[in-house]
Amino acid sequence: MDQIGGDSLTSIAVSAKNILIVHAHPEPRSLNGSLKTLAAATLQAAGHTVRISDLYAMQWQAAACGADFPQRDPDERLHYGRASRTAYDGGTQAPEVLAEQEKLLWADAVILQFPLWWFAAPAILKGWIDRVFANGFAYGIGVFDGKRYGSRYGEGKLLGKRALVSVTVGGQEAHYTARGVNGHIEDLLFPLTHGTLYYTGMAVLRPHVVFGANRLPDEQYAAVADAYTARVRALFSEAPIPFRAQNGGDYDEQLCLRADLAQGNSGPAIHQATGDGGR
Amino acid sequence: MDQIGGDSLTSIAVSAKNILIVHAHPEPRSLNGSLKTLAAATLQAAGHTVRISDLYAMQWQAAACGADFPQRDPDERLHYGRASRTAYDGGTQAPEVLAEQEKLLWADAVILQFPLWWFAAPAILKGWIDRVFANGFAYGIGVFDGKRYGSRYGEGKLLGKRALVSVTVGGQEAHYTARGVNGHIEDLLFPLTHGTLYYTGMAVLRPHVVFGANRLPDEQYAAVADAYTARVRALFSEAPIPFRAQNGGDYDEQLCLRADLAQGNSGPAIHQATGDGGR
Repeated sequence: MDQIGGDSLTSIAVSAKNILIVHAHPEPRSLNGSLKTLAAATLQAAGHTVRISDLYAMQWQAAACGADFPQRDPDERLHYGRASRTAYDGGTQAPEVLAEQEKLLWADAVILQFPLWWFAAPAILKGWIDRVFANGFAYGIGVFDGKRYGSRYGEGKLLGKRALVSVTVGGQEAHYTARGVNGHIEDLLFPLTHGTLYYTGMAVLRPHVVFGANRLPDEQYAAVADAYTARVRALFSEAPIPFRAQNGGDYDEQLCLRADLAQGNSGPAIHQATGDGGR
Repeated sequence: MDQIGGDSLTSIAVSAKNILIVHAHPEPRSLNGSLKTLAAATLQAAGHTVRISDLYAMQWQAAACGADFPQRDPDERLHYGRASRTAYDGGTQAPEVLAEQEKLLWADAVILQFPLWWFAAPAILKGWIDRVFANGFAYGIGVFDGKRYGSRYGEGKLLGKRALVSVTVGGQEAHYTARGVNGHIEDLLFPLTHGTLYYTGMAVLRPHVVFGANRLPDEQYAAVADAYTARVRALFSEAPIPFRAQNGGDYDEQLCLRADLAQGNSGPAIHQATGDGGR
């Protein structure tokens, strides 16, 4: 018999992957904490290897500052991006920054788990990005010569990896639709999904969003867990957001979208190949 | 003679105002530091009173956590928003949070000065918002009954105040236009301008943006300074972004923009009365 059992064993045989979960909630017993644990268990049961950066538990330092560069002259004027490049190239980054970069390089996929606070990531997660996504690692890669603006948006050091943003939202889904008062959830997350994750070369899945998270009745948790489990199981098979590659021909020499594409539309969704974000 | 002198004396006589500048750059000698100092000097010369929250100099704690509520039972499960409300209503907020709220209440206008990092505010500024914009102070105000969703977006405790986002951007302006690869700068800032500042009732001016800030030649600083001085002088006279009031009739009972408004457009700009952000 060739048959070796259920889906999970089959997927072990096919491809065991590495996943980094970056978790940004101060309360382990929160919904975010539960979703983080659920994702890890789901992936491990499928034969994958999971590492978790629990930013609050790690007491992650959020504010990017001169102390990120231990060998820098503290009296020198700090240009963060240039100091970042010097430290990255010279192997003198802060050890906690280097450790996170190594996790990113190890990972085949990254999950960011956080509550939406003021329509963006909590400061501690933004600070993980500000510090870990260093010059030479996440940006400043490739040729910049006034005609070409680097290898980014579909190229970069993290090419070939996948990313999933998993977010809890206090408000109702209607308020986050294309015409909802808060703005479309994917437009609000665009600086993160497109401007940060896709920027480094990662393929980014549609965000997984739990709406109404502030008042989620206990009896609804099972359905929330099922929905997220399905997304996590599809982490390596789901089609990513079809963001347009910077250097793929859709942008002109000013890096503006060609006039014949996404005509009549505006907003972040024009940077998806469908032109309207599928809305 | 009724005439009492030049413009600045006249403006003192007419209306001396209070301005809070929130500054989020680690290097005092940076372009951001210069713009912060320039704004303060310009406003003081016009007879206004300026206070500065220099977040790096204050060593502002960015990560919102249970320690923000000194009288909370540390063994209790932390729901940040609820703990925030309890502390706000009970007068038991962390003293540094209360101090910033008092500055906001004192101010007639707020300027946020920061470099755009990963298409958003630096973590230290996001953490100022996460912690200072408390439940009962900046959100959770008014009636929430399933038909009405509070007093926000054009109403709120900070109604009558003005806000200006002043940001330096490393990249080129073309890349931040309506069809630029990074997305329109006002769409990237929408979670801050609309979702945070306008949310609390403030009238928000168009962001002031210095592009190409990473490689700004010294000889161009004078022009940059002149342009910013003009914006700062117009802080109380310039027309704000015409964001639509949540409870002003443009949204239906699901808080979705009425079907007859901004037809054919999508993206954050539909929440401006012009429907297209004037682009």
